[in-house]
Amino acid sequence: MSKFSPLIQQLVDSLRILPGVGPKSAQRIALQLLERNRAGAMQLSRALAEAMEHVGQCARCRTFCETELCHICADSRRSDSPSLCVVASSADQLAIEQTGQYKGRYFVLQGQLSPLDGIGPAQLGLDKLQQQLSAGGVSEVILATNPTVEGDATAYYIAEQCKKYQVQVSRIAHGVPVGGELEYVDGTTLSHALSGRKLLL
Amino acid sequence: MSKFSPLIQQLVDSLRILPGVGPKSAQRIALQLLERNRAGAMQLSRALAEAMEHVGQCARCRTFCETELCHICADSRRSDSPSLCVVASSADQLAIEQTGQYKGRYFVLQGQLSPLDGIGPAQLGLDKLQQQLSAGGVSEVILATNPTVEGDATAYYIAEQCKKYQVQVSRIAHGVPVGGELEYVDGTTLSHALSGRKLLL
Repeated sequence: MSKFSPLIQQLVDSLRILPGVGPKSAQRIALQLLERNRAGAMQLSRALAEAMEHVGQCARCRTFCETELCHICADSRRSDSPSLCVVASSADQLAIEQTGQYKGRYFVLQGQLSPLDGIGPAQLGLDKLQQQLSAGGVSEVILATNPTVEGDATAYYIAEQCKKYQVQVSRIAHGVPVGGELEYVDGTTLSHALSGRKLLL
Repeated sequence: MSKFSPLIQQLVDSLRILPGVGPKSAQRIALQLLERNRAGAMQLSRALAEAMEHVGQCARCRTFCETELCHICADSRRSDSPSLCVVASSADQLAIEQTGQYKGRYFVLQGQLSPLDGIGPAQLGLDKLQQQLSAGGVSEVILATNPTVEGDATAYYIAEQCKKYQVQVSRIAHGVPVGGELEYVDGTTLSHALSGRKLLL
């Protein structure tokens, strides 16, 4: 056998779709599951199938969920909030939620503008965002896309679109991360931190 | 949401059984599959279920396969070979097969002696190995367990058991790996390489 038996080989090949899993790791994972954790692997199989079949996007904020509205959009205390935070992904939304500081609603782009990859305003659901802005009820749009070229471009594009509406538009602050050392902070971040300095007295 | 929706969270939790996948990677993998590769994830789900349900062990050599005999044991040119190579796992068997140098049969222990973990001779199928030796037809047993404490102990134990039978017992050579530099080889390996030196002239 220069290869495993067909079913094992099929499992090894299928594991390659996981990010960062090459041929050797796929083989190691497959054998380890067969040897030690068949129950866990069956559970993973079911969880994968259920999530892929039933998880869609919230009709209002586009985050991933299996219900029509996600639990934030379904919560009237939050869905009627005048603050709308625009993030690139559900993971970013979770990161902001975990700070416990933001109590408004979200709009999840599920991507960032990237014309070369064919990701334009339509793919990010910006028409839906405009509908929500024109329907009123939003007084501030917080642009929390990533501090990268694509994220900045996306934020700028959305800010331009917001000009038509009576809304305040803000971008999350760029600066030195808490706990970092100035010496190791890159120049662009440092110049953002300087130009965005705040008066203490 | 300080967590994802139930189905996504269940997928994140289930992904944690994969070796080397912590909470953050599990989350990244789950969202990446939902965003970009639902077809691949469904295929992985099926492959996992099929492998876990149908893959058992070869009745003769104990390697993982979904048939009663693996394709080496089912191949009369190999299954009647007088050489029997004892390896710790199906992955080790594959590694030896890939050298293309060995044409005999195998016995796969699916583990190594480790009394503290409750792995004794019975768990390694050594009774089955003894049956095969007493049935005759084997003239050489090659002990290709790992060059570790457990692997050496396992090899020594099996060698002791083989004394009753008319078989030659050998252990794969320890020494410096090909392409390595002496300077960086550990002391134990180097002393094995010295004591196992071969005459050239």
